[in-house]
Amino acid sequence: VLRRLVGALHEADTGDLIEALEPDLRPQLIELMGKDFDFSALTEVDDAVREEILEELPPETVAEGVRELDSDDAVYILEDLDRQDQVEILQQLPATERIVLERSLLYPEESAGRRMQTEFIAVPPSWNVGQAIDYMRETADLPDRFYELYVVDPDQKLRGAVALDRLLRTKRPESVLDLMDEDRRRVKATDDQEEVARMFERYNLVAAPVVDENDRLVGVLTFDDIVDVIEQEAEEDIMALGGVGPEEELSDPVWVTAKGRFTWLFANLLTALMSAWVIKQFEHSIEKMVSLAVLMPIVASMGGNAGTQTMTVAVRSLATRDLSDANAARFARRELLVGLLNGIAFAVIMGVIAVVWFNVADLGLVIALAMVCVLTAAALGGFVIPLALTKLGVDPAVSSGPFVTTITDVVGFFSFLGIATLWFGLR
Amino acid sequence: VLRRLVGALHEADTGDLIEALEPDLRPQLIELMGKDFDFSALTEVDDAVREEILEELPPETVAEGVRELDSDDAVYILEDLDRQDQVEILQQLPATERIVLERSLLYPEESAGRRMQTEFIAVPPSWNVGQAIDYMRETADLPDRFYELYVVDPDQKLRGAVALDRLLRTKRPESVLDLMDEDRRRVKATDDQEEVARMFERYNLVAAPVVDENDRLVGVLTFDDIVDVIEQEAEEDIMALGGVGPEEELSDPVWVTAKGRFTWLFANLLTALMSAWVIKQFEHSIEKMVSLAVLMPIVASMGGNAGTQTMTVAVRSLATRDLSDANAARFARRELLVGLLNGIAFAVIMGVIAVVWFNVADLGLVIALAMVCVLTAAALGGFVIPLALTKLGVDPAVSSGPFVTTITDVVGFFSFLGIATLWFGLR
Ligand SMILES: [Mg+2]
Ligand SMILES: [Mg+2]
Ligand SMILES: [Mg+2]
Ligand SMILES: [Mg+2]
Ligand SMILES: [Mg+2]
Ligand SMILES: [Mg+2]
Ligand SMILES: [Mg+2]
Ligand SMILES: [Mg+2]
Ligand SMILES: [Mg+2]
Ligand SMILES: [Mg+2]
Ligand SMILES: [Mg+2]
Ligand SMILES: [Mg+2]
Ligand SMILES: [Mg+2]
Repeated sequence: VLRRLVGALHEADTGDLIEALEPDLRPQLIELMGKDFDFSALTEVDDAVREEILEELPPETVAEGVRELDSDDAVYILEDLDRQDQVEILQQLPATERIVLERSLLYPEESAGRRMQTEFIAVPPSWNVGQAIDYMRETADLPDRFYELYVVDPDQKLRGAVALDRLLRTKRPESVLDLMDEDRRRVKATDDQEEVARMFERYNLVAAPVVDENDRLVGVLTFDDIVDVIEQEAEEDIMALGGVGPEEELSDPVWVTAKGRFTWLFANLLTALMSAWVIKQFEHSIEKMVSLAVLMPIVASMGGNAGTQTMTVAVRSLATRDLSDANAARFARRELLVGLLNGIAFAVIMGVIAVVWFNVADLGLVIALAMVCVLTAAALGGFVIPLALTKLGVDPAVSSGPFVTTITDVVGFFSFLGIATLWFGLR
Repeated sequence: VLRRLVGALHEADTGDLIEALEPDLRPQLIELMGKDFDFSALTEVDDAVREEILEELPPETVAEGVRELDSDDAVYILEDLDRQDQVEILQQLPATERIVLERSLLYPEESAGRRMQTEFIAVPPSWNVGQAIDYMRETADLPDRFYELYVVDPDQKLRGAVALDRLLRTKRPESVLDLMDEDRRRVKATDDQEEVARMFERYNLVAAPVVDENDRLVGVLTFDDIVDVIEQEAEEDIMALGGVGPEEELSDPVWVTAKGRFTWLFANLLTALMSAWVIKQFEHSIEKMVSLAVLMPIVASMGGNAGTQTMTVAVRSLATRDLSDANAARFARRELLVGLLNGIAFAVIMGVIAVVWFNVADLGLVIALAMVCVLTAAALGGFVIPLALTKLGVDPAVSSGPFVTTITDVVGFFSFLGIATLWFGLR
């Protein structure tokens, strides 16, 4: 009964079921279901859950399950295992299947070669539509799902792709060469998955052929895996901007999560200590005029938030390739003007508030000047830092935050306390 | 020559070309190219650019261009125009085409009905594979691209979908009913695009039929438009978390951008004023012990960053449906423990730093206690706020930030200054 029930579920639903089970019941369920368990459900669970399950299962069971999958799903399941566990499982596979997976695993992480499936339909350039259709009708071992055929020379060199809808609207005697889209952008196996995803998105591709360094067809990428890449890359950026490691998952144990978050908080502590040091230089001023201590966090916090705004736009536009060297100068000018405009707006607002609240006319003037300084600095830091990090080859989503905050905090406290000290002669 | 060159470009490249041109040259290029201009390029440019161009072009030209498009692209181009401009353009179209577009425009923004294309292939349940293939070979007016056929009763009720690859691997006499996937999840025209995108992602769909309230097939959603939805929804969340309106685009004028950012900064100002008010209650303590002013921003800033971490994970997991009522309690417990652990870690670190720096042993103890308080409060606020906002039907990505910061700032300043005042007897 259980077999029938679970066997009828879609792999994504089976994945959710597994995640909902107690950790030690998970491998049990899989062993119980035996051949009826669809291992593609394991591509749908969190990494930590999958690794735990795979540790528990005997290598033979995993090897058997992995054989049933498309190569891309098999690689996805194997790639995060220790090299030793990988080898144990791969040894259980027939040589041809092992070699295919081994080769995919040799490509760098997050490359097209890692993400591609090696099951595809290749036809010779001499065929016509009728021959291609007959071939598909007669071959039992076709990929589970496919969206294009590929026309390939005898030496495996890719000639072009034929979309299934084109094949279906064409009469049988027509040559596949006439239907073929030669222009179809091909992907190199070593290309980064993010670049490939941008191409899919831009040209609305349902699939793309992957070629090796000799332009030989070695695999296919399909839209569904690219959708996962797009989600994953967006996820990475959201998490990174929020100061969380991209590999953090809801199922992680407390200890792992705490350790992951610690690093970012520690970077932030250094930033905060720098601000504290700036404030310390003005201890005497604060002692003489304690309202400075009341108002100074406002200046720093407005700067931090404005800097985050500019930084977010910059990081995101860099990721979507909307921001490049071509329009960086225009972007910079716009951000500086926006910073200046809002600087003036909040200078007026905060100036009035400070005067009304503390009844010291000059205090309004001082905080107004500081506000203009910090919001302009925030705009500057908010785009210079992500652009500079990108030039240095560092992911701007991960590292921009602490730098931008350091700039806005230091400028915020220094300008406000500095201007106040000079203006009121507090030294 | 220009016509030939631009005409040969992919629509996405034409879109980039248009964006790179001076604003007043854009409509000129389109008019110059006349019938050779592919209006789908306009779906690839920023909203502001598109609206400007459409204002400039005569309604007849737009109507002519829009006629050539799939209905989903036509709707995408028309939906942001003033109702009056829409009517002017729609009046230029033949009645059948006008009615189709009018109907799509009646569905709510960001609904499946707005995003669907009304061009699809429907076949009667009595057909076999051979008849379906012959129909496609003989009909000139098929959709540009398609990935599935839909089996539809005479009263337009949807029976199921047939993927093209299934059609191609089956012999001609087989009935489409036998090939049909009845289970295929259908989309209601009023469903929200984000829900639909999650379904595509989860079940790896290349296309999905859209039905009206009577289960009649009215349109099709395809993966490429869903990819855009996924990007757009991720973009919205990234921007919202960074305090930027989701409609902000790089091509916006300075004034519009500044106004959009102002709102968020103003919300932040209210938060900052609240913190300032808390600090003001402790003016005497600070006057007596100015090192409190030096250290207090560290406590608040650590709290703010920890709160942002938890909030980011909560907002993102809510968006991907990974976090729900079912596991909210587990998540809450994990976050609180993480907050407590890191609270203790940074209590020790900051305690030592404070003692060494200021040479006052008790100051280390006070800041350590405050650090535990603020990091625990940050964890609490970081998940309670997004969950509560979601329950209230407010988008947690947009509004969580200021609330979480208010909590961490107030708790940070209050706990540190309060504990210090009590401990050192500063009142
Ligand atoms: Mg999941
Ligand atoms: Mg992985
Ligand atoms: Mg697209
Ligand atoms: Mg796949
Ligand atoms: Mg998959
Ligand atoms: Mg990446
Ligand atoms: Mg990235
Ligand atoms: Mg664009
Ligand atoms: Mg729009
Ligand atoms: Mg998927
Ligand atoms: Mg479309
Ligand atoms: Mg939305
Ligand atoms: Mg959303």
